[in-house]
This record gives sequence, structure tokens and C-alpha cells, in this order.
Amino acid sequence: MAIKIGILGYGNLGRGIECAIKQNDDVELAGVFTRRDPSTVKIMTEGVKVYSVDDAPKMKDEIDVMILCGGSATDLPKQTPEYVKYFNVIDSFDTHAKIPEHFAAVDAAAKANGNVGIISVGWDPGMFSLNRLYANAILSDGKDYTFWGKGVSQGHSDAIRRIDGVKDAKQYTVPVDSALKAVRNGENPELTTRQKHTRECYVVAEEGADKARIENEIKTMPNYFSDYDTTVNFISEEELKANHSGIPHGGFVIRCGKTGWNGENSHIIEYSLKLDSNPEFTSSVLIAYARAAYRMSKEGQSGCKTVFDVAPAYLSKLSGEELRKNLL
Amino acid sequence: MAIKIGILGYGNLGRGIECAIKQNDDVELAGVFTRRDPSTVKIMTEGVKVYSVDDAPKMKDEIDVMILCGGSATDLPKQTPEYVKYFNVIDSFDTHAKIPEHFAAVDAAAKANGNVGIISVGWDPGMFSLNRLYANAILSDGKDYTFWGKGVSQGHSDAIRRIDGVKDAKQYTVPVDSALKAVRNGENPELTTRQKHTRECYVVAEEGADKARIENEIKTMPNYFSDYDTTVNFISEEELKANHSGIPHGGFVIRCGKTGWNGENSHIIEYSLKLDSNPEFTSSVLIAYARAAYRMSKEGQSGCKTVFDVAPAYLSKLSGEELRKNLL
Repeated sequence: MAIKIGILGYGNLGRGIECAIKQNDDVELAGVFTRRDPSTVKIMTEGVKVYSVDDAPKMKDEIDVMILCGGSATDLPKQTPEYVKYFNVIDSFDTHAKIPEHFAAVDAAAKANGNVGIISVGWDPGMFSLNRLYANAILSDGKDYTFWGKGVSQGHSDAIRRIDGVKDAKQYTVPVDSALKAVRNGENPELTTRQKHTRECYVVAEEGADKARIENEIKTMPNYFSDYDTTVNFISEEELKANHSGIPHGGFVIRCGKTGWNGENSHIIEYSLKLDSNPEFTSSVLIAYARAAYRMSKEGQSGCKTVFDVAPAYLSKLSGEELRKNLL
Repeated sequence: MAIKIGILGYGNLGRGIECAIKQNDDVELAGVFTRRDPSTVKIMTEGVKVYSVDDAPKMKDEIDVMILCGGSATDLPKQTPEYVKYFNVIDSFDTHAKIPEHFAAVDAAAKANGNVGIISVGWDPGMFSLNRLYANAILSDGKDYTFWGKGVSQGHSDAIRRIDGVKDAKQYTVPVDSALKAVRNGENPELTTRQKHTRECYVVAEEGADKARIENEIKTMPNYFSDYDTTVNFISEEELKANHSGIPHGGFVIRCGKTGWNGENSHIIEYSLKLDSNPEFTSSVLIAYARAAYRMSKEGQSGCKTVFDVAPAYLSKLSGEELRKNLL
């Protein structure tokens, strides 16, 4: 019997979940839930219905795990504590600073209703967090580095688009190669924001717009760009569509540490991702944790969990015997 | 109260454990157990005693976790099922093909006595296995690659030393750079044994020995060298001591996979280790899992576990709150 998955919110992430379900025969799509008029939402999976979010609670017995695909700013802080009353849920809440309060809200609702809610699933937070934890637990005397990119930052692209005279834009976060090399060499460098990443912008200006002003506004924008070496490339709308329509991302988590009676030996642990599609990869992680939520719930567990609380074996469709035989 | 650790077997790994305990203030060394005459074994930690292995069972109430530092060929198949009767235990059993039967033997004895035994802990099996599992669970449509090195293979070094006319030798396993690059490029190459790794040998010949014969015997040795491109360097005993006395190792676990409605997007997950000291890094992993065994046992769990069965949070001395705040 396949695990019945619901998708709440049908944007890039929701579509990614739908693709990931197609790739895994132990899960099946039971329904898509939207805040739009359901008749206007066309999904790819044949024979599966689109419902209004308002109908979700009624379907509590027809869905094993609901995957919440809303945004972290305003959607998830409300949705996750709400829907965990009816379902086991997974979200990809990524506002690092607000994770403790989100955890507390989801935990209370999940425990009160006997469901499992796994929050902050994806790659950062998610797989990067896991790798930080493992590396810290192993090398207690060491230093952590996280680099992001090369990849598209939606927030930075949006910030450029809000500038007067900008028609469209895409911003790539790029790790500085010399910084990465110094870290990998075990040099334990102290790196400023500027030394770790650069920002590459591809901008379509409106006709007649003052490009020098736009470039200056980007480069001096506080929080987003002023602390970085930023390059601004003005290109045509066609070029933006042809060369910058993907949503690639990735990055590196590196820990350098010492062992030995007097710290005489050095070690480097590195985890990296190179992703053609950020939302599709995130979706694949979410499906693995949906499998885990289902199993943990079947065992009688409840409450809020993060990737730190989930034993790896729960993520695989293979049995313990198969895992030990084939992957250990 | 620190977790009281026992070390059974005091070779490279046992000494590594002793160093790792010094680095972690939530564990303390309670005793070292040896098959040798205890009076002949000198350890580094002041105020800690060396005991005969025969005395270990009597100390069952003074040790929280016993770390078994014997070899996989003959020691651990007997020791782990035996000592889990008295203690929570950790071993680094690494004979991949025999893990299922080792698991069964340890599981039966652990359950009968209410203890936890975590087997096959280290980096391969261990951290590499974990990364294979996570990457497989996320990218279900993909291909795995494991490369080892550059690092010292004790088994291959020993095999060379057994050749007539060889005084001493060290063998390095080296991943082939072009193969690694092809994998990272997402080319999904089919690689033969020869295409993945080369073998570099540093050999000290006895005076007057026939070096051409020795080189030929190495290069044609079945199982160990005949399937590889092998280079043999004859060096002096002094040079071997000066440049090849360390025990470095490392390697790469890479999974390339596809997502999307028609598999149109590619992703690469890579985990790598670069280790100055193989036994000291392995020891650091063992200590993290000793912490986990202690906690799982305190919760009332028992039986045989592997790294697949241990939720990551158990490995860190930080609380759930601290982990969510600082590492998620």
C-alpha cells in the first residue's frame, strides 16, 4: 500500500513534489490543495483532483502525510501548526532565526492531536544542517564553513526587480574560489562576508532607463548587496529567458578539525550539492521525510521533529536487512 | 556526570579513542583492557588503570560504554557478542560481506541482556554508508560512486611486506582524477576497477634483493594489485620513515541523480573526507556513537544498531534546543 501524499500549495515546490512522487513507487499523490479556484489549477498527474484548501480537514482520513509548500514568511507559521491538527505534515520552513518558536507551535499542536510534524526539511535547513551536526559531533575541536552557490537567490532577484527602471532580473550567489581553496587546505581562514561570496546580477532594463543609476542602486543596496563585490550585467529580455530561466543552486558545508593527544592531526569533512533545480531537489528531500513521518506516526510517535530527530533508516524504502546488506 | 568509557584493545585505534576522550568533556576514560600483561601497557591518561580483559566483566557497573578496538577478521566476531552481555558496546566491524551475520549475533546477545551494541561504526562502514543512504533516499533515480584515498591501505602494505626480499613497505590507494572529474560532471561513467583507483607502493628492499622480481611480484599479485595500474618505488628505510610514517586516508561518496517530470534535471551530492590520521578520525566517530549508545540505553532501548538506526541528535552533546538554534 503506497503512502498517500497531499500537496498544499501548487507553485514551484508543489510541482517538484508531484515529480518526486512519480519517481517513488511507495508513495502516491492523493490530492492537491490550493487557495486559488481549484478549477483554474491544472496538475500533471492524471486522475488526481485539485481541491480548495478549505476542504483539506475533511480529507483527514484519506491522506497519510500532507506536504506544506507555502512560504516561510507568512504561510508556514500559520499553516504548519494548523494542518498538523489533521495530518502528519512536512514543511520547509527556512527562517533560521524563527525556528525555535515555529518548533514550539508545531510541537504543541502535533502532540495534542497525535500527529508527526517534521519542519525545516530541504537542503539548508535540512541536509546542510545534518552535515553540520555530524561533522561537529565527530570533530569537536574544529571550525565550520558554509558556502552557497553558484545559485539563484530569489530574494536578491526580487530586490533588483523592485528598482525603478528594471524590467526583470536574476541574481546568482557565487562562492569565492580562493576562499573555498583556503578552507579545503585546512588554513582555517577568518572570512568576511565579502571574502566568501560574490553576487552576479543579470538585469533587463526598461527602454531609456538610466543604467548607471540602476547599477549604483544595486551595488549600494544595504543588506542585499553593499557588503559584497557585485557585478551587474545588462542583457536583453531574450537573453535572460534563454540563459537564465533555470533555478540552479548548491553549496558546500566544510568542517576542519584537529585530533590527537596534542591536536597534531588535521581532518577535513566536506559535503556539497550541485543542483540543476533547487525546488525539485528540495522536493525529493521532502518526500524522503514524508516517508519517515508516516513510519514514525505508525509507530505511535507524535510531536514536532527536525532532520536531527529522524533516524536515517526511516528515509529509505529499503528494509533494515537490505540497507545493511547493500549500503552499509 | 561524564559518560564512563572503557577501551578494549590498545593499538592505533585504542590510542585514538584515548585522544578523542581527552577532547570531549562529557566522556571520561574509566579503564583500558588488554590481552597483554597489563603491567607492560603504558597509556597516556594519568590516573587511569590498565586491566586484563579477563577482569572486564567484573567492571560491568563501572563502565557505561565499552569500545571494542579489535580487528574484524577474528577479534570482533567473538568479542562484540560476548561483551554486549555486560556492556553497551561500539565496534568498527568492517567486513562488509559478514555484517548481516555479525548483526544477528550481536542483536541476540544485546537483547537478551538489555544492552545496546552499535556495530560497523567509523567512516566506511560508517559516515560513507550514511551518505550513501541519505543520497539514495533523496535521489531515487541515480547512480552511486565511492572512491577511496589518497590513503594507506594496511592490507596492501602487509601483502607487499610478505614478499621475499622486502624489508618494509607502504601502499597508497589513489583515486583516478579523470574518473572523479567525469563523475562530478554528471557523465555517469561505467568505471572498471582499473579506471577508479591506482596503487602507489613505496618499498624498502633487503640488501642484494632482486628489485625487478619484487616489482613483478607486486604488480601481478592477484586480488591485491593485478587489476590496478600499480607503481613501485624503491626507497631507503630512512626515506620510508621520514615521508611515509603517517596513516592518512579519505575518499569520496558521490551520487548523481535525476529529477523532474521527465528526468530533465540533474543533481550531484558529494561527501568527502581528507584525513591525516585514519585511526584518530575513526576514533572520533566511535566516541560520538558511544554517546548515542549511552543515551539510547538510558531510554530503555536495547539490541544491535548501526549508524542507520541512530537519530543524528543522539551524537551531539548539545540539547535539542541548542541544536535547532545553532546548527539547523
